[in-house]
Amino acid sequence: MPCMLRVDILVKFKEGVDDPEGKSIKHALELLGFEKVKTVKVGKMYTIYLNCDKEEGYEIAESMVRKLLVNPVIHEYEIRVEEV
Amino acid sequence: MPCMLRVDILVKFKEGVDDPEGKSIKHALELLGFEKVKTVKVGKMYTIYLNCDKEEGYEIAESMVRKLLVNPVIHEYEIRVEEV
Repeated sequence: MPCMLRVDILVKFKEGVDDPEGKSIKHALELLGFEKVKTVKVGKMYTIYLNCDKEEGYEIAESMVRKLLVNPVIHEYEIRVEEV
Repeated sequence: MPCMLRVDILVKFKEGVDDPEGKSIKHALELLGFEKVKTVKVGKMYTIYLNCDKEEGYEIAESMVRKLLVNPVIHEYEIRVEEV
């Protein structure tokens, strides 16, 4: 029987890559009075449900990352696979 | 001496709220041959560095969520605070 997998892929900008959305949010937080904010970084979390076994799930996630979700020039990522 | 805190705030759509970006990505993955994808949800991860102590950090994060980062009608969120 095929199981169901939940794959969480967190995609962030690499250190040193400009993050304009993060800067805007930092600025907005400062305008709202949050003075202790030092840096804001914005990433994306893709939560993908898959029909398959755990090992294959990780491979599929790596492949999705390479083919669609991540630009290796500017992004770094973390993959977490969990049976649900 | 003030410490440095890392606050991770994950903002996702609530169950039942339309997620057009997730649907587009699911469609794109299917076109690329990933047939086992059942659902794709897209969330945002805000990583915020703060100068302050841990308890205060959680309060500040809750306040930022209420005032700027989350629309409680459509979003749910998780906060994680870590000393760095």
